[in-house]
Amino acid sequence: MFLSKLDSLNDALKLIDENQLVVGTEKIPIREAHKRVLAEDIIAYHNSPPFDKSAMDGFALKGENTFGASQSAPKTLKIVDAIGAGDFCDKIINEGEAIVIATGAPIPEGADAVLMKEYTTTDGDELTIYSQVTPGENVSPKAEDIKKGEKILSKNTFIRYQELGLIASAGYDTVEVFKKPRVKIIITGNELVEPTKEEIDKAKIINSNQFTIKAMVEDSGAIADIGHAGDTFDEVREAVLEASKEYDVIMTTGGTAISKGDVVLDVVDDLGSVLFHGVSIRPGKPIGAGIVNDKVVFTFSGQPVAAMSQFDIFARKFLFKMQGRDFNFEITKKEAMLKIPSQLGRTDFIRSFTDENHTRHVLNRGSGIIRSMVEANSYIIIDENDEGYQKGDMVDVVFFNSLLW
Amino acid sequence: MFLSKLDSLNDALKLIDENQLVVGTEKIPIREAHKRVLAEDIIAYHNSPPFDKSAMDGFALKGENTFGASQSAPKTLKIVDAIGAGDFCDKIINEGEAIVIATGAPIPEGADAVLMKEYTTTDGDELTIYSQVTPGENVSPKAEDIKKGEKILSKNTFIRYQELGLIASAGYDTVEVFKKPRVKIIITGNELVEPTKEEIDKAKIINSNQFTIKAMVEDSGAIADIGHAGDTFDEVREAVLEASKEYDVIMTTGGTAISKGDVVLDVVDDLGSVLFHGVSIRPGKPIGAGIVNDKVVFTFSGQPVAAMSQFDIFARKFLFKMQGRDFNFEITKKEAMLKIPSQLGRTDFIRSFTDENHTRHVLNRGSGIIRSMVEANSYIIIDENDEGYQKGDMVDVVFFNSLLW
Repeated sequence: MFLSKLDSLNDALKLIDENQLVVGTEKIPIREAHKRVLAEDIIAYHNSPPFDKSAMDGFALKGENTFGASQSAPKTLKIVDAIGAGDFCDKIINEGEAIVIATGAPIPEGADAVLMKEYTTTDGDELTIYSQVTPGENVSPKAEDIKKGEKILSKNTFIRYQELGLIASAGYDTVEVFKKPRVKIIITGNELVEPTKEEIDKAKIINSNQFTIKAMVEDSGAIADIGHAGDTFDEVREAVLEASKEYDVIMTTGGTAISKGDVVLDVVDDLGSVLFHGVSIRPGKPIGAGIVNDKVVFTFSGQPVAAMSQFDIFARKFLFKMQGRDFNFEITKKEAMLKIPSQLGRTDFIRSFTDENHTRHVLNRGSGIIRSMVEANSYIIIDENDEGYQKGDMVDVVFFNSLLW
Repeated sequence: MFLSKLDSLNDALKLIDENQLVVGTEKIPIREAHKRVLAEDIIAYHNSPPFDKSAMDGFALKGENTFGASQSAPKTLKIVDAIGAGDFCDKIINEGEAIVIATGAPIPEGADAVLMKEYTTTDGDELTIYSQVTPGENVSPKAEDIKKGEKILSKNTFIRYQELGLIASAGYDTVEVFKKPRVKIIITGNELVEPTKEEIDKAKIINSNQFTIKAMVEDSGAIADIGHAGDTFDEVREAVLEASKEYDVIMTTGGTAISKGDVVLDVVDDLGSVLFHGVSIRPGKPIGAGIVNDKVVFTFSGQPVAAMSQFDIFARKFLFKMQGRDFNFEITKKEAMLKIPSQLGRTDFIRSFTDENHTRHVLNRGSGIIRSMVEANSYIIIDENDEGYQKGDMVDVVFFNSLLW
């Protein structure tokens, strides 16, 4: 098979979208739920706070009993009890009475405000107050954060630390989330060796894709295992077939062998079907995708930068959506510091360094130059309908950080 | 102890900075180094690519032998050998000769370009070419990415997936990184119970800080263990003392008990020294910090939102810097959609929702309202020298996402 006719980026993305898979769900302890995606709506089991709660250390009392009190005209109340956090007091506060209260403790019946300790002095059960408070002051009202029975988070919400706190407060000790997809990364290439400080045999090259693509999979919420296959049809076929039985997604890198075209796509065609091979983008044109055993296979380039870009363009969204999480490039407009040529009909993802206002492409753009990804923090995206930009034009930029899980 | 006099934010941050600790370093396998911080410079052991490498499947040849070739005026060359990826060919290419070459294979001596397969036909060892290539075309020159002996990354670099690939390509199978700090989070509060769907005892409240603060510590590259302590001086003292022996950092939440002021700060004062207690910020005013057994202790509020903001303002930078990674708020300017009042002398961190151009504070701002953090994606920061903003003013915004490890 060969890239005789390139698909447009949109056509290729649409084919992937039409074959989107979603993993199952699982119930996990809330303490493991950070950075997972909700597979159920969260309906509150409790009010939060469950009662009118003191927001200060001080004295619970009737606000109107303090009206007019000041440094020069103090008032006197009677202390009738004390409540610590976690304690409950069933006394009713009457006119002229106050009760010592800790932050977090329930406001007793009859009281409607808390006067901070620093505006008072005490002598036995006599409380002298030097300031007034309005009713409701320093009180966190019952259910102000969460109302019992209310839906407070929806299925498909990504659980950041703050959502985690909210879910716990609503009474959930376990939560239903989408499973993490299991991804098999099959590295092909007879020329590849493991990293070593020692002299490397002529014609061999260190395999870096196994590290970068695995890290990118993990940065997409999924779990990655690495496998290796020689460049022959049979070796790649066996590796893909086995992976298709045990994993949710398959990704390959490399796989070009003399006179055989792209052996990986031949394997996908043999075991299942090819969705596309060759997309009008730069870098990353030779990207392919297919279906084997109802699993999607992404076939990335062996060139490190092409493989990373292909992952960002095609695989991230797929992995996010597998876990019920939506994903779209967050595009911002920045001023181009350099002229950027492009070609009509091709979408470019140009490694760039972007600051608050400006963006410039990194100068060394070969698809084998990992350093170009290291110097970059963003892509400039040039649409297939644009022939590039002049210096000073506002261009579409996506920060690498915004792509992460 | 009480918050009789508040420190300014800058003074408090300076005190923390003066007591900044750095963890030790450790050598780990490169496959575990994603999202760690380099504790050594990376000096390349190899060139990458290690040789002039073919970037295409095709024919290695002398570029000038192709000059003038076109569809209407093809030229003919002689195929003298074939090189697969990982193979080495010591033949020298002479005038009129070509060699079959795979992507990734070394360019043989005498050749200087690769003509893509699709512009050729073959008949036995006769190669007909229908296009010309300039010398250097489709060749990735030796060392274009990495030069042997060159420093390609510096100590203190954060290892994203692309740095990981670069380090591997430079020949490192292990790498020296900063250790992950171990943080003990001590939750205080007699009123706290674990999340449950069942009816909760009067006066009890679900403990959510244990989940949010642990997740925030993990989002700062560190490891967190949770402990609990009752609200008494002795219980808190024992918990802090034990933690100071085993952990790199201690964080507490809550700790307010009747008539005892802030028991946690009393404990810090007893076991070591208090750096500050009470900072002129909102939310989070009661924040404290101190030193026990040469370890820094952060004392956060029990109120969930105050605790999260205190973490962001005081603890993130400390944890980042412990691991050799710099951290500063990435401030962007956005247009305020609503008027925001503030107070001279106080720095406000206002939970806000910010899009491409605009920002607005979330309306419910109580420091117990976790939902306000859930509705927010950013802080609007109002400097102590500002009295707030009018609608339409450009204000300082920090996205929550930009705070993460």
